[in-house]
Amino acid sequence: FSSKLPQTAVSIFSQMTALSNTYGAVNLSQGFPDFPADPELINLVTEYMHQGFNQYAPMPGIMALRQTIADKQEYLYRVQVNPETEITITSGGTQALFTAIGTVVSPGDEVIIFEPAYDSYKPSVEVFGGKVIPIRLQAPAFKIDWNEVEDLISDKTRLIIINNPNNPTATVLTQEDLAALERLIADQNIYVLSDEVYEHIVYDGRVHQSIIQYPGLRDKAFIVASFGKLLHTTGWKLGYIIAPSLLTAEFRKIHQFNVFSSNTPMQYAVARYLEQQERYLNLSSFFEKKRDQLITGLKETRFNVLPSQGTYFLLVDYSSISDQNELSFAQYLTKEYKVAMVPVSAFYSGTCNQHLLRICFAKKEETLASAVQYLKKL
Amino acid sequence: FSSKLPQTAVSIFSQMTALSNTYGAVNLSQGFPDFPADPELINLVTEYMHQGFNQYAPMPGIMALRQTIADKQEYLYRVQVNPETEITITSGGTQALFTAIGTVVSPGDEVIIFEPAYDSYKPSVEVFGGKVIPIRLQAPAFKIDWNEVEDLISDKTRLIIINNPNNPTATVLTQEDLAALERLIADQNIYVLSDEVYEHIVYDGRVHQSIIQYPGLRDKAFIVASFGKLLHTTGWKLGYIIAPSLLTAEFRKIHQFNVFSSNTPMQYAVARYLEQQERYLNLSSFFEKKRDQLITGLKETRFNVLPSQGTYFLLVDYSSISDQNELSFAQYLTKEYKVAMVPVSAFYSGTCNQHLLRICFAKKEETLASAVQYLKKL
Ligand SMILES: CSCCC(=O)C(=O)O
Ligand SMILES: CSCCC(=O)C(=O)O
Repeated sequence: FSSKLPQTAVSIFSQMTALSNTYGAVNLSQGFPDFPADPELINLVTEYMHQGFNQYAPMPGIMALRQTIADKQEYLYRVQVNPETEITITSGGTQALFTAIGTVVSPGDEVIIFEPAYDSYKPSVEVFGGKVIPIRLQAPAFKIDWNEVEDLISDKTRLIIINNPNNPTATVLTQEDLAALERLIADQNIYVLSDEVYEHIVYDGRVHQSIIQYPGLRDKAFIVASFGKLLHTTGWKLGYIIAPSLLTAEFRKIHQFNVFSSNTPMQYAVARYLEQQERYLNLSSFFEKKRDQLITGLKETRFNVLPSQGTYFLLVDYSSISDQNELSFAQYLTKEYKVAMVPVSAFYSGTCNQHLLRICFAKKEETLASAVQYLKKL
Repeated sequence: FSSKLPQTAVSIFSQMTALSNTYGAVNLSQGFPDFPADPELINLVTEYMHQGFNQYAPMPGIMALRQTIADKQEYLYRVQVNPETEITITSGGTQALFTAIGTVVSPGDEVIIFEPAYDSYKPSVEVFGGKVIPIRLQAPAFKIDWNEVEDLISDKTRLIIINNPNNPTATVLTQEDLAALERLIADQNIYVLSDEVYEHIVYDGRVHQSIIQYPGLRDKAFIVASFGKLLHTTGWKLGYIIAPSLLTAEFRKIHQFNVFSSNTPMQYAVARYLEQQERYLNLSSFFEKKRDQLITGLKETRFNVLPSQGTYFLLVDYSSISDQNELSFAQYLTKEYKVAMVPVSAFYSGTCNQHLLRICFAKKEETLASAVQYLKKL
């Protein structure tokens, strides 16, 4: 049997969560909240199930939910999006990414990604016969040098994948970054896949810069979003993708034969729940408190905290504590100090050791406090 | 933009459902029940959501659900399946099919399918660069000539897709069929994808023949199943796939980057609900009553009913009524006689007209009765 992904092992998130469970550690590795979803939202799901909304949703998603998203795009970004032809509900952000990559990438195509990169980008490109051209970014700023990107663009370049706010670096792109990207692909047959699943989680008064606000990008971009990250329901597997109608039409052809449609009662519930647009606005301050609690706690440890501008992650530098590589040190901490984190090296395709671990702080106050207690022993 | 699926349009199921809604017709086209799911099952979902089971499930699915499936395989088919390494929970049967095809099909590979065929097989093969070799079966028996299959096997043949019980023909494969397939692929590097989403719906005392009972097939087969079809919840998008551990390992690599995991609270609910194994056994008699009600009703119309051995579909021959092609006649019936059905030609890749329509009878007694009233007017 010739494997399409010979190098793929169990994902680092599954690995660390399993190790965390084995050693009874505090799990700050895989990105998911440990606090409850809003009971009001859960009650809506129950209501719709009892009302009989349990059969196939329309393939692109129910219109009420797509309309809610269009309203949000207008409300937050002042951009008109056509819910008929430009929005598709997906079975999570990951399925949206995979399907979008499948839509544009053919054998021989090149795809530029920035490392550290979310772990699904590279294998998804490879499944469809594409080749990843990785650009390595360096701690602590992880700045993109757009001249370097320009140099790597070739006739074969088909897609550039960006992730903003960024997992795992917790950095955000600036207006200058997006303007540079816009200039770079003007008049080129290159698409952009913008993973914005953390769009509603940015800190210190920042405003999220969506690619949709840049006309030269909007026309060539897929934008991926996640209800799991917004509503603390990563296990409901609901997300969506926005793309111009031509791209959406091609995306839906593959989506239709991949999953056909996504969870019906949950789509109805989320649509109703998000009629209140304030829901989007509270998320940043909600997570900013958690971030600050964790940063304050970590000051009493030997870790050096890197700034977190967005997402519910932050990076810590352990170079003053150990010389081990990141995976070994993460495993050691899980076993001996009962806190599980993710080695940042897992987000690079080659080997590398910057002595960085990623911490997920989408956790209850007690969880964060207890993790800090353990880490102070180091 | 060069489309990967230039010929793909909106699926016939979506088309007919939309037309049915437009004309206020009785919708017997798309395959989904119009009666409620069991409130006990719905209550379990609610319970698990409130208990906080709303975050990522493990990538291959929760172990309790996989164990339930393994128990069922032993109970119904007397076959041991390892839930750790051979069962993966998917976001519906369609996602299982798509991912399995992506696991084994590479550019240039040939895949044998039997037409009429479920509409996702061909485009899924094509998305991954494969070429479909269709074998046309003829009404009313839709028998496979295994010598013809043998003649079409080449060095490039990588996969054979079967669907048993069959949608849309409502026929089932015999022991002889499966034994012939087993002989055919012995010592060949060919895999089998067996779509058994209607495994629990077979009529007139029949017992479903799963491919898992044939050792020479089990070792090379993916078997796809659907909780939507079993539990009357097609909109929950939950299914599973069984395959030997080597194939499962490769399947999961792609699954992990496609959807990562499937709905968490619903997995827990289904696992608890299916602890009672009788649930599997009641389905055939439940749908047999509906089939018989519809057949009795159709006797008073000018349609000629073909036998339905399994699934919740049956075919009707309208050649004594009209000479129109199947799509036109289906549209005409929807508009003028307020009953929507699916043209069987939609399941063939070339043109063809056997004057056959597919009816879904997974409907309430009143629904079926009212459809018959309309059709009697013809
Ligand atoms: C799909 S598991 C990974 C979850 C996540 O977003 C992360 O931990 O980065
Ligand atoms: C996924 S929509 C099609 C549903 C179905 O199984 C059918 O109608 O054949």
